[in-house]
Amino acid sequence: MPHVSLITLGVDDLSRARAFYEALGWRRSAASVEGEVVFLQGGTVVLALYGRADLARDAGVASASAGTEAGTHAVALAVNLPDEADVDALLATAAAAGGRVTRPARRASWGGYSGYVTDPDGHLWEIAHNPLFPLDAEGRVELPDGSE
Amino acid sequence: MPHVSLITLGVDDLSRARAFYEALGWRRSAASVEGEVVFLQGGTVVLALYGRADLARDAGVASASAGTEAGTHAVALAVNLPDEADVDALLATAAAAGGRVTRPARRASWGGYSGYVTDPDGHLWEIAHNPLFPLDAEGRVELPDGSE
Repeated sequence: MPHVSLITLGVDDLSRARAFYEALGWRRSAASVEGEVVFLQGGTVVLALYGRADLARDAGVASASAGTEAGTHAVALAVNLPDEADVDALLATAAAAGGRVTRPARRASWGGYSGYVTDPDGHLWEIAHNPLFPLDAEGRVELPDGSE
Repeated sequence: MPHVSLITLGVDDLSRARAFYEALGWRRSAASVEGEVVFLQGGTVVLALYGRADLARDAGVASASAGTEAGTHAVALAVNLPDEADVDALLATAAAAGGRVTRPARRASWGGYSGYVTDPDGHLWEIAHNPLFPLDAEGRVELPDGSE
């Protein structure tokens, strides 16, 4: 059964977004990369804050417009899987079921392997294998604690 | 710590969307309401499929445009909480932290109590107490199985 591992929110100001979610009680993980991406652990799903344009570029889609409203493709849901072959298989299944692969799977600079597909309504999914984010027995990502 | 309980995707065609996610392995819960909302259990987070206009109306925001790309406010993340006072408290915290309450909390026809707030980048959150969706010890929603 697929599992939503991570939700990426495209944001205009990483510091502002981080301050907002920390005020609500989320905890920043040490996996965060200063000035680039903030990972927040909240229960069983990871929330990632990432530049809006960076997200669109990574996903191979048109950039969402900045502003006070969340624009097109400003959110990506991710399914993390145990290995690369699983990524290829789920992307193929999604394409056969009416999804559109916006960026085929490839090795990523961060050490993993992922691709993007939109569902029939245009919702963006990243299908990923990330060896740096181990999955527990239930398939959920466990981030390192800490907020340096 | 807040917990993403549920992710609502605004869709143009409920049957088409349901077929897509079932093809990917999600299981429809018996909590679904025929022709209105589809709840899918996937690991530790619930995926809800809901009409795009219905979602915007419920959230008190402008409707996302239909089409092949996910538009503004076509996604809402939800935090489900143990009681109504928690909902009021988290909405107040979010507003104080720079969020915008798009629909104040109120009793819902489905028996719960919820309001909506956008984060500083416009991402939509529903803050809810839903007595019909009990929370487990980790704060996650456990839906009834089954797909009638």
